[in-house]
Amino acid sequence: MEHKSAARKMKIGFIGLGIMGSRMAANLQKAGHDLVVYNRTAEKADELVKNGATLAASPEEVGRACRVVFTMLSTPQAVEDVALGQHGFLKELPGNSLWVDCSTVNPSFSKSMAQTALKMGHRFLDAPVSGSLAPAQNGQLVFLIGGSATDLDEVKPLLDVMGKAVIHVGDHGQGASMKMVNNMLFGQIMVAFSEGLRLGTSLGISEEVLCQTLMNGPGGAPFLKLKEQKLLTRDFSPEFPLEWMHKDLHLASVTAYEQGVALPLLQSAKEMFGFAKQAGLGEEDFSAVYDFINPK
Amino acid sequence: MEHKSAARKMKIGFIGLGIMGSRMAANLQKAGHDLVVYNRTAEKADELVKNGATLAASPEEVGRACRVVFTMLSTPQAVEDVALGQHGFLKELPGNSLWVDCSTVNPSFSKSMAQTALKMGHRFLDAPVSGSLAPAQNGQLVFLIGGSATDLDEVKPLLDVMGKAVIHVGDHGQGASMKMVNNMLFGQIMVAFSEGLRLGTSLGISEEVLCQTLMNGPGGAPFLKLKEQKLLTRDFSPEFPLEWMHKDLHLASVTAYEQGVALPLLQSAKEMFGFAKQAGLGEEDFSAVYDFINPK
Amino acid sequence: MEHKSAARKMKIGFIGLGIMGSRMAANLQKAGHDLVVYNRTAEKADELVKNGATLAASPEEVGRACRVVFTMLSTPQAVEDVALGQHGFLKELPGNSLWVDCSTVNPSFSKSMAQTALKMGHRFLDAPVSGSLAPAQNGQLVFLIGGSATDLDEVKPLLDVMGKAVIHVGDHGQGASMKMVNNMLFGQIMVAFSEGLRLGTSLGISEEVLCQTLMNGPGGAPFLKLKEQKLLTRDFSPEFPLEWMHKDLHLASVTAYEQGVALPLLQSAKEMFGFAKQAGLGEEDFSAVYDFINPK
Amino acid sequence: MEHKSAARKMKIGFIGLGIMGSRMAANLQKAGHDLVVYNRTAEKADELVKNGATLAASPEEVGRACRVVFTMLSTPQAVEDVALGQHGFLKELPGNSLWVDCSTVNPSFSKSMAQTALKMGHRFLDAPVSGSLAPAQNGQLVFLIGGSATDLDEVKPLLDVMGKAVIHVGDHGQGASMKMVNNMLFGQIMVAFSEGLRLGTSLGISEEVLCQTLMNGPGGAPFLKLKEQKLLTRDFSPEFPLEWMHKDLHLASVTAYEQGVALPLLQSAKEMFGFAKQAGLGEEDFSAVYDFINPK
Repeated sequence: MEHKSAARKMKIGFIGLGIMGSRMAANLQKAGHDLVVYNRTAEKADELVKNGATLAASPEEVGRACRVVFTMLSTPQAVEDVALGQHGFLKELPGNSLWVDCSTVNPSFSKSMAQTALKMGHRFLDAPVSGSLAPAQNGQLVFLIGGSATDLDEVKPLLDVMGKAVIHVGDHGQGASMKMVNNMLFGQIMVAFSEGLRLGTSLGISEEVLCQTLMNGPGGAPFLKLKEQKLLTRDFSPEFPLEWMHKDLHLASVTAYEQGVALPLLQSAKEMFGFAKQAGLGEEDFSAVYDFINPK
Repeated sequence: MEHKSAARKMKIGFIGLGIMGSRMAANLQKAGHDLVVYNRTAEKADELVKNGATLAASPEEVGRACRVVFTMLSTPQAVEDVALGQHGFLKELPGNSLWVDCSTVNPSFSKSMAQTALKMGHRFLDAPVSGSLAPAQNGQLVFLIGGSATDLDEVKPLLDVMGKAVIHVGDHGQGASMKMVNNMLFGQIMVAFSEGLRLGTSLGISEEVLCQTLMNGPGGAPFLKLKEQKLLTRDFSPEFPLEWMHKDLHLASVTAYEQGVALPLLQSAKEMFGFAKQAGLGEEDFSAVYDFINPK
Repeated sequence: MEHKSAARKMKIGFIGLGIMGSRMAANLQKAGHDLVVYNRTAEKADELVKNGATLAASPEEVGRACRVVFTMLSTPQAVEDVALGQHGFLKELPGNSLWVDCSTVNPSFSKSMAQTALKMGHRFLDAPVSGSLAPAQNGQLVFLIGGSATDLDEVKPLLDVMGKAVIHVGDHGQGASMKMVNNMLFGQIMVAFSEGLRLGTSLGISEEVLCQTLMNGPGGAPFLKLKEQKLLTRDFSPEFPLEWMHKDLHLASVTAYEQGVALPLLQSAKEMFGFAKQAGLGEEDFSAVYDFINPK
Repeated sequence: MEHKSAARKMKIGFIGLGIMGSRMAANLQKAGHDLVVYNRTAEKADELVKNGATLAASPEEVGRACRVVFTMLSTPQAVEDVALGQHGFLKELPGNSLWVDCSTVNPSFSKSMAQTALKMGHRFLDAPVSGSLAPAQNGQLVFLIGGSATDLDEVKPLLDVMGKAVIHVGDHGQGASMKMVNNMLFGQIMVAFSEGLRLGTSLGISEEVLCQTLMNGPGGAPFLKLKEQKLLTRDFSPEFPLEWMHKDLHLASVTAYEQGVALPLLQSAKEMFGFAKQAGLGEEDFSAVYDFINPK
C-alpha cells in the first residue's frame, strides 16, 4: 500500500511491545520510520532491534530521544508507570511533544493523563484501537481518537500505517469512551447470542444451523462470524480473554454510575461473564461465556 | 427475475392479506399462479381480485378449492380460527394437502397444528419469515422452515417467488423456534445498542458519531443500520411495533421456562421493552426502546 | 381453644387431602363438624373416616351432600377436574351453595372459577393460605380471601378453626393475587439474602455470624429465621419445593406481562431459581437457591 | 438504664457531630464521660459544650487530649482528613491509643485505616452502626465491630451507652463488611416490596391492604413497617437518602467484582435505584424507589 509509506520519516518512541504493540511498531518500521523502543521484558524488542530500532534502557531514554511517543500497555497503572514513574518518559520529552496512548483505559484516566501532559507543556491523544492480533499485524486496526484535530493531523500518517481507519471521536477521553461503548456492545451481543442458542438448541435446532442462520441474518454482528469456529468446536483459546471483557464491563458499569445513567442490560451481561469467570473460564476467550450458558 | 416464474402453475390458497400477506400473495400472482384468497376484511383482496384472484367467502371455500394453502396471520388464535374454527379450511381440504403457515407463532403451537393436520390426513410446514414490508414486496423474504424436506421441496418454487432464501431449520415447530430466537436476538441487541449510546452520549460523544462508528464496526448488526434514521430523527413510525417485540420476548421467556433454561439477559431486555411500553411507546417501532433509554 | 369449637356444626365437603388438606380437614373435624371427604387416593382419608368422616366415591357425591365445599389441590387443572370434570361436584350442589378454594392458583383462574360458579347459581371464595405443614396442623394458617364479605362471614367460623387470621383482601381473584405477591416477596428476599451471604463470606465473615446478625436485624424477614438451620447445615429437605417457587415466580411474571407492569427484580430472582433448578435443586426446598449462590 | 452509667469515666474524643454523631456523643456525656469534641462546623457542638464538653479547634487537639477517639463521618475522604490530614489526630495520640470509627465506609478502607493506625503504634476498630436518628438518640443502635476482642472489651462499656447491642463480627474491616451486606439486603428488599405492590395494585388490591398483609406476614422485614407511612402518604422526607443507598449498592457491586462473586439481584436492585435517581428522587428517602416503581 504505497500511500502508507508516504509519511514523513521521523524518530518515534514506542513503549509496550506485547501482542499488539510489537505488530504495530513493526508496521511503523516497515514504513521507514526510525523507532526508539522500550519494553519491560527487553527480549520482546529483539526483532525490531534486528531491523534497526534503538532499544532504550528505560522510558526516560525514549523521552529524551523523541517528540512523538506511542504507548500500548495493558492497564492504567502500567501507563502511569512508564509516563510518570521514577523513570517515566514524560518529564524528559522536549517541549510540546505529542504522546499517543493506544492502551484501553478509562475515559477518566485518559482525561487525567491529558491534563498532566498539558501541564507539563506537551500534547496528548487517547487512541485506543478496535481490532486484535490479525488486524494489528496487517495494518488493519481502527483508531478511536480523543483530542485535538490538529494533533491528530500530525500523527495521522503514522496511524494510517498501522490501521485502516482513524475516527476522530471528540475531545480528550472520548477515544477511550468510544472504546468502552464498543466493548460493552460486544459483550452484550455475545451473551445475547449465547442465550439465543441456548433456547434454540433446547428446542431441537442444531448449533450449526443456528449459527449459520443467525450470523448471516440481520442480527448477525460481524464479529460473531469470527467466533463461529470457537463456538462449534468449543476451543476457546483466547484472542481477548474473558476476564478482560468482564473488567471492561465492570469499568463501563462504574463509569455509568459516575455519569448517573442506569443500564440494566449491561449489568446482566456483566454478571454472566462473572458467572463464567467463577466457573473457571476467565483466561479463555470472552466468547467462552457461550460455554457457560450452553454447557455440553 | 426469470427463474422465479419457472414454478409449475397451480391453484393456491392464501388466507390473511395484511401488510405482509397481501404483498406475498401478489408476488405469487405475478409469477402466474391462480390464487383463491380469503381475508376477514374482504376489501384487502380487491387488488388481487382485480388481477384475477378468486375471493372466497370463507376459509372453507379456500379449503375446497386448493391442495396448497398459505396462512399469514397475526396471532395463534387467528390461525386456529381459520384452520379449525366453524368455517375452518382444514376439514375441507382434499386428502394429503399441504398447509404452509407463515405466521409468527409459538413453537408449541406450530407443533400442535402439525399434529392436527397429520391426524386429518394432511401435511404441514411452519414457515415464518424474516423481513418486513419492503422485503415482502420485493420478494426478498427469508423463510425459516419446520417440517419434512419432501414437503418443503414441493413448495420450494412458491417460496422462491416470495423470498430470496429458504432455510430448512428442522422438524415441525423448528421454523417457529428459529423465528423466536431471531427476534430475541434483535430485541436484545436493540437494547444493548441503546444502552451503549446512553453511556456514550453521557460522556460527550454525539449520537451521529456513535451510530456511524458502532454500526459500521464489528459489533454493528446489519439491522441496526436500518434503524439509524429513526434513532437520529426520533421518528419511530412502526415497522415492527414495540408491543409485538415485547410480546415476542415474553413468549420466548415463557418458552424458556417450559424448556427449563435460565436466560437472564432476555429477561432484562424484556423488562426494558416493558418500561418503554409503560411509557406509552407500545405502538411505535420497537427501536423506540432507544427513546426510553435515551430521553431527549 | 374453646372459641374455635363454638362454630355452628354443619356438613362440610372437603376435597384434596394432601399434606395441607388432610391437616385442615382434621381441624374441622376436631371442632365437631361432619365431613364428607374425597381424595383421588382414597387411603389418605383413612384417619378422617376412622374419626367419623364420610368417604365419597367421587366429587359428585360430595356435591350432593353439602352446601359448603372446600378444595385444596396442587394445580388449577386439578381444581378444574374436581369442580367441572365429568364427575365434578359443582353441577350437583344444591342451589346457592358456597365453594371455598384454598388452592394456590392464578388470579385469572380464580376469577374464572368464580364466574362459572355464579353462572351455575352458586357462590365462590378464593382462599389460599399462607403457611405450610406445621401451621396447617396447629390451626395457625393465614387465609387470604377474595370474594364477598357476606360469603366470608358465612364460613369465617370454619376458617377460624383452621387458621389464626383471615384477611379479606378484596373481590374474587384477589385472595389469589395476594398469595402471588406474597410468594414473589419470599422468593426475592431468599435470593437477596443468599447474595448478601455470598458477599459477606467472600469478605471473611462466617455464615453463622451473618445469619445471626441479619436475621435478627431490621432486614430479617421472619421466614428467614425458619430457614437458618437449612442454610447452616445445607440440608434442604423440602417444605416448599424450589421448582414450585420457580413456577410461582414464572406465573407472577406472566401476570405482570398481562397487567402491563415491568418488574425487573422479579425477573432476576426468577432466573436465579431457574439456574438452581438447572443445577438439579428443583426438588429441594426453595431455600436451596442459597446452595446455588453459595457453593460449598 | 442503670448499667449504662456504670462504665469507668474517661476522657473521650468525638469527631463528627452530624445527625448521628451529635446524639451518640450526647449519650456518652449523659453517662458521665468527659468529652473533647471536634466538628468542622463548630456550632454543632454548642449543646455538648454547654453541658461540659471541651471544644477542640482541630482534630490534632482531640488527639493530644484523649486515648480513645470516636469518629462518625459521612465519607472515607472525611475520615481520612481528620485522621491523617495536615491537622489529623492520629499523629498526636499518646502511644497505644484506640480509634473507633463508626462511619459507614468500604471494608478495604477500614482495613487500610487499621494498618495505618497499627504502624503508628495505635489500635483500631471499625464500628459502623445499624440504626438511624431515633435509635441514635435513644441509645438503641447496633454496633457491628471489626477488630480484636481485647480492644472491643476496652470500649464495650462506651458502646453500651450508645447502643443496645454490640456484635463482634470479626477482624478489621468485617464490621464495615457486615454493614455493607446489611444495606445491600435493605436495598433489595425495598425494591422487591415495591415490585410486589406494583403487581398487587395492578390486580386491584389497595396499597393499605397489601402493606398490612405483607408487612405483618413472614416476608415482612421489620424495617418495612417503619416505611409504611412514607409509602402510603408518598411523603419521602429523607431518613436515609436514596442516593446514599444507590452509592452503597454501587460500592457493594464494586466489592463483589473485586471478590470475584457474581450477584445479579444486587445489580438489578442497584439499577432500579439508578432509575429512581435519574427521575429526580436522589435526595428523598431511599424508600422513594417505591414511588418510581409505583407512579401515582
